[in-house]
Amino acid sequence: MDMMFHCLGYKPRPQILLGTFIHSKNRDELEYLHNSAVAVDWQGTICAVVKDRGSAGVARDVVLRTLGWGIDDVDIIECLEGQFFFPGFVDTHVHASQYPNVGIFGKTTLLDWLDKYTFPLESSLADLAKARRVYAACIRRTLAHGTTTASYYATIDVRATNLLVDLCLSIGQRAFVGRVCMDRKGLCRDFYRDESPEASIRATEATIAYIGQVDPGYQLVSPILTPRFAPACSTEAMKGLAKIQKEKSLFVQTHVSENKGEVQLVKDMFPESSSYTAVYDDHGLLTDKTVLAHAVHLTEAEAALVAQRGSKVSHCPCSNSSLSSGDAGVRWMWERGIDVGLGTDMSGGYSPSILEAARQATLTSRHLAMQIEDGERRERCKLTVEESLYLATRGGAICLGLGDKVGGFEVGKQLDAQLIGLGIVESDGLRAGEVTMDWIDAGNVDIFGWETWEEKIAKWLYNGDDRNTKMVWVQGRLVHTRR
Amino acid sequence: MDMMFHCLGYKPRPQILLGTFIHSKNRDELEYLHNSAVAVDWQGTICAVVKDRGSAGVARDVVLRTLGWGIDDVDIIECLEGQFFFPGFVDTHVHASQYPNVGIFGKTTLLDWLDKYTFPLESSLADLAKARRVYAACIRRTLAHGTTTASYYATIDVRATNLLVDLCLSIGQRAFVGRVCMDRKGLCRDFYRDESPEASIRATEATIAYIGQVDPGYQLVSPILTPRFAPACSTEAMKGLAKIQKEKSLFVQTHVSENKGEVQLVKDMFPESSSYTAVYDDHGLLTDKTVLAHAVHLTEAEAALVAQRGSKVSHCPCSNSSLSSGDAGVRWMWERGIDVGLGTDMSGGYSPSILEAARQATLTSRHLAMQIEDGERRERCKLTVEESLYLATRGGAICLGLGDKVGGFEVGKQLDAQLIGLGIVESDGLRAGEVTMDWIDAGNVDIFGWETWEEKIAKWLYNGDDRNTKMVWVQGRLVHTRR
Repeated sequence: MDMMFHCLGYKPRPQILLGTFIHSKNRDELEYLHNSAVAVDWQGTICAVVKDRGSAGVARDVVLRTLGWGIDDVDIIECLEGQFFFPGFVDTHVHASQYPNVGIFGKTTLLDWLDKYTFPLESSLADLAKARRVYAACIRRTLAHGTTTASYYATIDVRATNLLVDLCLSIGQRAFVGRVCMDRKGLCRDFYRDESPEASIRATEATIAYIGQVDPGYQLVSPILTPRFAPACSTEAMKGLAKIQKEKSLFVQTHVSENKGEVQLVKDMFPESSSYTAVYDDHGLLTDKTVLAHAVHLTEAEAALVAQRGSKVSHCPCSNSSLSSGDAGVRWMWERGIDVGLGTDMSGGYSPSILEAARQATLTSRHLAMQIEDGERRERCKLTVEESLYLATRGGAICLGLGDKVGGFEVGKQLDAQLIGLGIVESDGLRAGEVTMDWIDAGNVDIFGWETWEEKIAKWLYNGDDRNTKMVWVQGRLVHTRR
Repeated sequence: MDMMFHCLGYKPRPQILLGTFIHSKNRDELEYLHNSAVAVDWQGTICAVVKDRGSAGVARDVVLRTLGWGIDDVDIIECLEGQFFFPGFVDTHVHASQYPNVGIFGKTTLLDWLDKYTFPLESSLADLAKARRVYAACIRRTLAHGTTTASYYATIDVRATNLLVDLCLSIGQRAFVGRVCMDRKGLCRDFYRDESPEASIRATEATIAYIGQVDPGYQLVSPILTPRFAPACSTEAMKGLAKIQKEKSLFVQTHVSENKGEVQLVKDMFPESSSYTAVYDDHGLLTDKTVLAHAVHLTEAEAALVAQRGSKVSHCPCSNSSLSSGDAGVRWMWERGIDVGLGTDMSGGYSPSILEAARQATLTSRHLAMQIEDGERRERCKLTVEESLYLATRGGAICLGLGDKVGGFEVGKQLDAQLIGLGIVESDGLRAGEVTMDWIDAGNVDIFGWETWEEKIAKWLYNGDDRNTKMVWVQGRLVHTRR
């Protein structure tokens, strides 16, 4: 566990967080806890939550008394007026290897985008110095946006994938790291392809073994089986991965039904399967530990199959809009019993921010709603602020099997959290701290003081960015801080 | 002209800007000028442009020689490696009075949104201290995002509207300022309505007169006639405004065809007019100086009428998505000969940023494209990076009659511009300047160094924010700067 001590500000002492805590109570509601305290043991586990006392000081004293801690034995982090603690974000689908290409997609759609932008960049990361630069930038950037857990696609390269593992551990981000399996000739170009199904499986096993060595018990980083998507994988490779999945009970991530051309391609390539989703099922990869990215064009039968298998969906609204893939219906999936989380899907998606993904999820739901004639169904289709923030936290945690571990402030969970601060507008229209010597850029959320907490959260969702994320903890460790 | 001296950094000296300049060559293309110089006289007018020399120094010397200026007589602003000058943004539709409500809209659509959120806030700005706080915050915030020209809706209150004029002048933003005319009982609530058509006209004239006093010749701030939208205005008031328009040749701004319910309402209220657009035409308000916001649901006949009259459209994609109004087709309007600009439409739109509006314009065009079967039409529907930045600058300038005055770097234009800087990723994945004592937050655009200029611009469009806008000039005056 030595690597933990490399992390910024890590101190193996218990901590007490004091002030306002906001998290999802359920899919529809946020819970607002004021004058509250959350105690975290030295291993990063929440061991007490004291809610709604007369003041933060009272809450602190209750915690100290209850746990028998002395005030000198703990670190106290108290949020300022208007600040609040929020669970860290969970990014259920992100290609770390594509990070340098964010925003670069032109008018392409999925299949030409892969060829034009994506495969050349990914293959170039066999250069480990380049991979280090790209992966470190991606991890630091997403952490700065409050992403405490990320499910990463790396590349086909084992050494570069293992480097991504090392960087997650040393910088301190919780992650699933998947070496990308893609061995099928034709769609996969010769310059960037696993040589054979056997090579694909061997390389996958090598990364799994590596993670087992550097993070035994998968405390921070877990392997995740990553068949890129059906058209890129041979039947043998998919079956091999399914065998590993069964043996080791690992998570699986892949893409499904992102784009109509891709759906047709899968139909042509796998005539024996009844649908795109069925291809994965027929190969043993549709499990309750499978995260399917996009799922834009699922049929009713496919949705029923996904729900039956307990597989999850990563909703990637920025990507789906950018690559003109389509509008995925979160409400539609929820109504069919499918768990959904959010993915940035960089670089199909342009933004490293899950807050932006949550924002775009609300907008995508409105684009869908606009196409619905029936008034009641139209209204229901729209996602609320609360629902989109649920997707960003607990929803994502559930997709990655972390529902008991992260996503809210409850005893027994890990402290994967962020401290959020919003800007305060002074009487002359300037922001507090803006013109002092110690210039502070409080970001774009301007609070005038008359807003309810619900309104403050809405303002944060729609204009917030990494400047509002003042501190980030993963497993209780402070892994990011800004002025 | 005394007020000019209040502005941050105003110096009545000529300036020479050196380095890379990027602006729209036409709707489809950006022009990239490297090692170039733009000379600006003490009144803020560009008086020389020297393009593509061996170095910035050579360009500077050519300018000095050509103009006969001594190097000690001018201020030199040279952009750093990777930085560039870009025209200031033009926001063709923004309600300054709604600024505190950005992000607050819930599941409402236009008509209930007006009642629930908008009218109560707008009416409260009769309190001038509150108005000062709100308007100053709005101007500072939009300037920080590079908006050098804004076409503002204020409120019905003359004093508060005049205060907005004062603040634009003192802070230094080019603006059109409109007192909102809304006198029709029913849709307009009694607590927030002009008392009569005559009162509406009188109040409008009072603001026009005020602007004429404080900014004779409308150097920086111009009045703009602002019938809120047809359902809020009596026939008499609209005709009165049309009379003023003809006499004084002023600009007009209003809303058209934003939402289906509103379209139906107009049909019911104005049965004698053949369409929503025709209502304005029938009242003499559809001129070549009229800016129509939204225009989401225009019919072919309406588009033809708009084009025939030479009226302009302000495209407000953030707002149209947030309030589920619909997807307006920019390409569709262009093909019908209509000039289009971008509007933030705060607070129907959640963002103060025209860069965000440009980004969302590209995404909205893709949401529209997704609904088109025909492949060629579908591809054409999508807006490019270049087209969206044209909308943000020259497109908007043309809408507001400023096509000869701002929007690009040409001799005779005013210097309404911004200096853009992007982040540079170092070998360890950190950003340049991030961990030095003098901590710099370079924003979210990470440049690795291998990107083409076209790719840098795409990255800026999709991940840029106010942190990338390092300096802003209006009429040659430096009105915003950041570390």
